[in-house]
Amino acid sequence: MTIKLIGYSRSPYTLRVIECLHELGLPYQLDSPANFQDLKSEDFLATKHPFGRIPVLIDDDFTIAESRPICRYLATKYQGKHSDTILIPNDIYQASLVDQYISYDISYYDPPITKIIYQEIRAKRNNETPDSAVVKQASEDLAKVLDVYEKLLKGKDYLNGEFSLADLFHCPTTYYVYSEVFPDLWNDRPNVKKWWDRLNNRPAWKKTLEDRDKN
Amino acid sequence: MTIKLIGYSRSPYTLRVIECLHELGLPYQLDSPANFQDLKSEDFLATKHPFGRIPVLIDDDFTIAESRPICRYLATKYQGKHSDTILIPNDIYQASLVDQYISYDISYYDPPITKIIYQEIRAKRNNETPDSAVVKQASEDLAKVLDVYEKLLKGKDYLNGEFSLADLFHCPTTYYVYSEVFPDLWNDRPNVKKWWDRLNNRPAWKKTLEDRDKN
Ligand SMILES: N[C@@H](CCC(=O)N[C@@H](CS)C(=O)NCC(=O)O)C(=O)O
Ligand SMILES: N[C@@H](CCC(=O)N[C@@H](CS)C(=O)NCC(=O)O)C(=O)O
Repeated sequence: MTIKLIGYSRSPYTLRVIECLHELGLPYQLDSPANFQDLKSEDFLATKHPFGRIPVLIDDDFTIAESRPICRYLATKYQGKHSDTILIPNDIYQASLVDQYISYDISYYDPPITKIIYQEIRAKRNNETPDSAVVKQASEDLAKVLDVYEKLLKGKDYLNGEFSLADLFHCPTTYYVYSEVFPDLWNDRPNVKKWWDRLNNRPAWKKTLEDRDKN
Repeated sequence: MTIKLIGYSRSPYTLRVIECLHELGLPYQLDSPANFQDLKSEDFLATKHPFGRIPVLIDDDFTIAESRPICRYLATKYQGKHSDTILIPNDIYQASLVDQYISYDISYYDPPITKIIYQEIRAKRNNETPDSAVVKQASEDLAKVLDVYEKLLKGKDYLNGEFSLADLFHCPTTYYVYSEVFPDLWNDRPNVKKWWDRLNNRPAWKKTLEDRDKN
């Protein structure tokens, strides 16, 4: 049975899963709830996501929530079967380092970038005024994080050398802030810029954006 | 060679790793930097943690940073070898659900609880005044999260049924806020209270607190 993904094609969390599906060569069917209220229905909370969020993935009779665990599940179950992309290395040390880079995203990169998305992209789409103090602080925090990434990426194509789940997780959030808000945060740092160009040019990511624009 | 852990015995992130080591039956040597400034030295940033944080673990010639990846590494490498505790199930579906519960911690439980620790515990120890508006908002957010946990834990001993890495990750942060700030957030919810009692009574956690008090 085709994998079913509950989400919105413009949500960075949903895009994360769609990119993962493309990297692994897996077809999917996107199912978008009519509105945010549906995510808070008794049925959705009881059977899909107890906190009323998307994405949620259904693979036969297995249901799993939260973008990063969904991607890890897909990689663990399917990688190497329908494409050559290896998202989680077999070697335990390499896999653990990928995990470490995932935690750098969660702990340091994601918090400021998510604030910028929330203020500059989501607020503007809803015709709200972004909180400029929050944006200023977040962009300064992100700049410091990118200074560290600039060093981490020295002499490497991707965070852990080879492309992995860690790079993939950074992609949709970076895409939005790079293309709609602060491109220079990346452009001003040569290793970070080359890394982003590599991510942005991956065929699976291009397909992800094409899917988005069809929806 | 003995596993070396760089950290502070009172930091919840370090305690997370120490608890994991005890669950897995692994001896360790704790190495505490003289002060926070040492974490920002050129050498520490280049060889231990690029963002200047603890904990960092060194196992022979392998170095890994960030509490959750460290624990996953330890579980993957050592579980079943020196104790009976299974932190990550072998079954891929069960392991993926453990991952999902870990993401509930990271996304919903951890943000408000960390704010409370920062304001009420850390600020007070440094003789600073906690920001009461932040504490109020965080405790309301945490109460809502615990309402969801109350449902999730219905009829279960632990988040995924059996004890796992997901429960372990909640333990040190819960311990601090339960014992020093807001016990009623847990006491008022019967399933959540029973879950916390189970976690708090695990021999590995008791040993973790004994180690802490010896340091
Ligand atoms: N930690 C979650 C975050 C998911 C999330 O926040 N999704 C947004 C969509 S952009 C959502 O469902 N929002 C609904 C709401 O906040 O009520 C993940 O990684 O999947
Ligand atoms: N995401 C990290 C967080 C670690 C962390 O923030 N540790 C604190 C110790 S309680 C630290 O090193 N603080 C030093 C600083 O912020 O300069 C983890 O899970 O290990």
